Amino acid sequence: MNERIWTAGLVIIGDEILSGRTHDKNIAQIATWLQVQGIRLGEVRVVADDQDRIIDAVNTLRTAYDYLFTTGGIGPTHDDITVDAVAQALGVGVIVHPEARAILERYYADKGGLNEGRLRMARVPDGAQLIPNRMSGAPGIKIGNVFLMAGVPHITAGMLDALTGTLEGGAPLLTETIGSWVAESEVADLLREAEKAHDGCQIGSYPFFREGKVGANFVIRSTSADALASCTDTLCEGLGERGWDFTPGGI
Amino acid sequence: MNERIWTAGLVIIGDEILSGRTHDKNIAQIATWLQVQGIRLGEVRVVADDQDRIIDAVNTLRTAYDYLFTTGGIGPTHDDITVDAVAQALGVGVIVHPEARAILERYYADKGGLNEGRLRMARVPDGAQLIPNRMSGAPGIKIGNVFLMAGVPHITAGMLDALTGTLEGGAPLLTETIGSWVAESEVADLLREAEKAHDGCQIGSYPFFREGKVGANFVIRSTSADALASCTDTLCEGLGERGWDFTPGGI
Repeated sequence: MNERIWTAGLVIIGDEILSGRTHDKNIAQIATWLQVQGIRLGEVRVVADDQDRIIDAVNTLRTAYDYLFTTGGIGPTHDDITVDAVAQALGVGVIVHPEARAILERYYADKGGLNEGRLRMARVPDGAQLIPNRMSGAPGIKIGNVFLMAGVPHITAGMLDALTGTLEGGAPLLTETIGSWVAESEVADLLREAEKAHDGCQIGSYPFFREGKVGANFVIRSTSADALASCTDTLCEGLGERGWDFTPGGI
Repeated sequence: MNERIWTAGLVIIGDEILSGRTHDKNIAQIATWLQVQGIRLGEVRVVADDQDRIIDAVNTLRTAYDYLFTTGGIGPTHDDITVDAVAQALGVGVIVHPEARAILERYYADKGGLNEGRLRMARVPDGAQLIPNRMSGAPGIKIGNVFLMAGVPHITAGMLDALTGTLEGGAPLLTETIGSWVAESEVADLLREAEKAHDGCQIGSYPFFREGKVGANFVIRSTSADALASCTDTLCEGLGERGWDFTPGGI
C-alpha cells in the first residue's frame, strides 16, 4: 500500500539566526510537532529580514510542500516584515483583521492601549484566519497552506498547541533508536544490508563521543510497525552485545 | 566608501535535523565563526539525505554567495552521500585522495585498520584539498568555494579552527546590544527613526520574557564603529533609564 505522504517546508525569518546571535530552537520544535501530526518536514530555509528573499523562499516552498510554516517577523517593529512579504508572495493585499485588533485591544487595555506598533500585529494578508496565541496576545496567521508563527519559541509552542489535530496528515513516521559503543565505520556493511533488506525502512547513523569513547546511534524510520520491528531485530542481532535498544517506539 | 561585502551560504544535510531528533548547533557555530572572518551568512538550507536535493541546494547557494559550507554526510556509512552529491553538482568525478587515505590508515592503525566504510572517508570530488580534522581523522574537504564539514559540531569546530584566517573577508560586522525592560511595541517608533537616521546601521528587536516581565534586546549592527556608537547613543537616550548597555562591542 502506498500511503499518501504529507510534507511541510519551513522558512525561518531572522537576521539574528544568521548572525549566530540566537540559537534556533524552532526547527526542532516544529519538526517534532509535525511528526506527531503525520507530516514530514522536507526542507528548512533560514533567510534574512529581506522582503525579496522571504517572498522567494515562501513561493518556492509553499508550492513544493503540502504545508509551509514560517517563524519570525510578525511583531510590532520596523524589522517585522513577514506579513507584507507573504501577502506579496500570495498576490493579496494587507488588511487589519478586526478580530486580531479586538484581541490586541483587550490584551493591551491595562498596558497603555494600542499604538501604531501594536496595531501592526493586527495586520494580516487579506483572506487570512488567526491562530490563537495564549502567551502574548498577537495571533499567528493562517492563509491557504501557509502558517505564520512567532519567532520566540515558547510563543510558537502555544500556537502549535492551538493547531494540534487541525492539519491533515498521513501515517506518523515511527522510529526506533539503537545505541551502541561501536564506531559506525565498523558496521557500515551491516547498516547498508539491513536497510536494503527492509522495504520502506531508512537507517540513519549518528556517531557520538562520550566518556572518551566512540559510539553511534542508529535510527530506523518507517511508517510500518512490522517493518520497523523486523529491521530493528536485524540490526540488534548484527550488533550483538555492542548494541542496546534505546527508545522502544516513540518519535 | 562602499566596502566589498563577503557572503556565505550554508547547506545542512541531515534527516536527523528534519525529524527533530537532533537539535542543530552548526548554524550558530558557523555563523559566529564567519562573522569573525568578516563574512556574512546570507542563507541556510536544511535538506534531506537526498542526492537531488543536495545538488540543487549546493548549486544554488555556491553561485549566489562567495562561499558555501555544508555540514553532514561525510562519514563512513551508506547515508553519507555528500561527497558524491557535491561532485555531481560540480560536474567532476570522485577520487580517493592519497593524503586522506594515508591519514585514515594512520588513524585506524590501532583501531582495526581500514575497511570499505572507513575508506569511503578518503573519497573527495576530483580536484579537492583537505581540511585538517584533529578530532577524528577523517578530513573536511575544500573544492573551489565549497567547504564540506562534519555533521558532529565539535568536529566541525576543529575544522573551522583549521580554516581560521585562510578565507578572504571584509570588514567584520560590529554589534552592540542594548537590553531593556520595555515591550518592543512601546518603542517601535524610536527604533525605526534611529535606524533611518544612521546610514549603514541595522537595528533588530528581539523580545524576551523573564521573571514574569516583558523585555527586549535591541541589536545594532554596522561595519562602521562611529555609526554604531552614534546609533547606540541615540537608542540609549531614547530608552533612558529603561535601557542598559549589554555587550560593549564584540559580536
